[in-house]
Amino acid sequence: MATLYGISIGTGDPELITLKGLRLLREASAIAFPAGINGKPGIAQQIIEPWLAYQQPTLALEFPYVSDRNILVQAWQKAADRVWQYLKNGHDVAFACEGDISFYSTFTYLAQTLQEKHPDVKIEVVPGVTSPCAAAATLGIPLTVRGQRLAILPALYSIDELDSILAWADTIVLLKVASIYKKVWQMLKAKNLLESSWLVERATFPEQKIYHLRDRPSLELSYFSILIVQINRSSPP
Amino acid sequence: MATLYGISIGTGDPELITLKGLRLLREASAIAFPAGINGKPGIAQQIIEPWLAYQQPTLALEFPYVSDRNILVQAWQKAADRVWQYLKNGHDVAFACEGDISFYSTFTYLAQTLQEKHPDVKIEVVPGVTSPCAAAATLGIPLTVRGQRLAILPALYSIDELDSILAWADTIVLLKVASIYKKVWQMLKAKNLLESSWLVERATFPEQKIYHLRDRPSLELSYFSILIVQINRSSPP
Repeated sequence: MATLYGISIGTGDPELITLKGLRLLREASAIAFPAGINGKPGIAQQIIEPWLAYQQPTLALEFPYVSDRNILVQAWQKAADRVWQYLKNGHDVAFACEGDISFYSTFTYLAQTLQEKHPDVKIEVVPGVTSPCAAAATLGIPLTVRGQRLAILPALYSIDELDSILAWADTIVLLKVASIYKKVWQMLKAKNLLESSWLVERATFPEQKIYHLRDRPSLELSYFSILIVQINRSSPP
Repeated sequence: MATLYGISIGTGDPELITLKGLRLLREASAIAFPAGINGKPGIAQQIIEPWLAYQQPTLALEFPYVSDRNILVQAWQKAADRVWQYLKNGHDVAFACEGDISFYSTFTYLAQTLQEKHPDVKIEVVPGVTSPCAAAATLGIPLTVRGQRLAILPALYSIDELDSILAWADTIVLLKVASIYKKVWQMLKAKNLLESSWLVERATFPEQKIYHLRDRPSLELSYFSILIVQINRSSPP
């Protein structure tokens, strides 16, 4: 039987794919990725574009940005069915996933849906570069050293949560911070943490932007914004 | 002036280096890495061995496993001086770092020491695959999905800490868990979390081992052991 490969392609710079990821991408019979919006190429598709062989069929799979469970389940099943058409005929499929495949990836739902329908399906995944690591590299700062604790939050539901995590973690990474940025900034100011707080937008893409929070009480941010707060600066021991 | 490149080389499998990391490794005038113990090749050196060109000089830099600050500072200064001999003569140096360069890496101390001595030194880093991502990929499980929170702890100082983090995080990753494994297992059993707890030893190396915690109250573990606890299983929404 053929294999579905979940391939982490990194955060934006096409060179941040691993050798293993690129090898399996090139060897696959078909390349799948999340479809873009309004017929435009999706982000994963844009990242791997330099590596695609034009004879490989591509599968743009719909993963709608909704919370309605019925719509989501239908989309996953449709995506799983499209992939299965290849697998059942002995053709490997490589699913290209932005960032790392285990880190907030839609691939998880595709894989789970396929496994439910076809318990014997062969799935292998290749790890890759996460956005927090890419953002830290861009900033030239460590995320963590020695015994430091790292907390990663994909969203904040209330500003109070941040307070309790500040008490525990040495470094906090907030993903998708756009909608709550002003409140977060006020809290970081009150805690005297602005000097060790940075924001990276679209890390490793050509249009990447870096902001030091010190003088940025408000910012118009895109969806792909990562905030890193060093609570205990990573000085030598 | 030349550049010191901090290059993430991934977790063990040589193919988990990024294309960018490999390109910069091959272009550098000299390759640095942490020295092994008792004259043996270090782990980073072993990982990149297939990619080294034999005409490249190598610098095995000593980073002693001690907590004495004086000894550490002396070692960092000696390492910085050795790298500086190349940089000052216009020769790029690539430092190979296991895992990701921003994630608990000794490179941080080398870079900070160089910057203190030579404030104009040019340093660039390339992100890579972290051990938690590699371990999750090996297990075929997601680390996180949707709104889940991730806590990463490099060590536990007391078992009570784990209790407070269990109340907050959806997934916990414990690095270097060997010394406290039995106590952690007892706590996970008491919390009814053994079914969703796994341990990966030397992820992505040929000698990789996987353990489901269910029936493993004690384990003889090496230093490179990663424990992943899914507190809230990552089922579809």
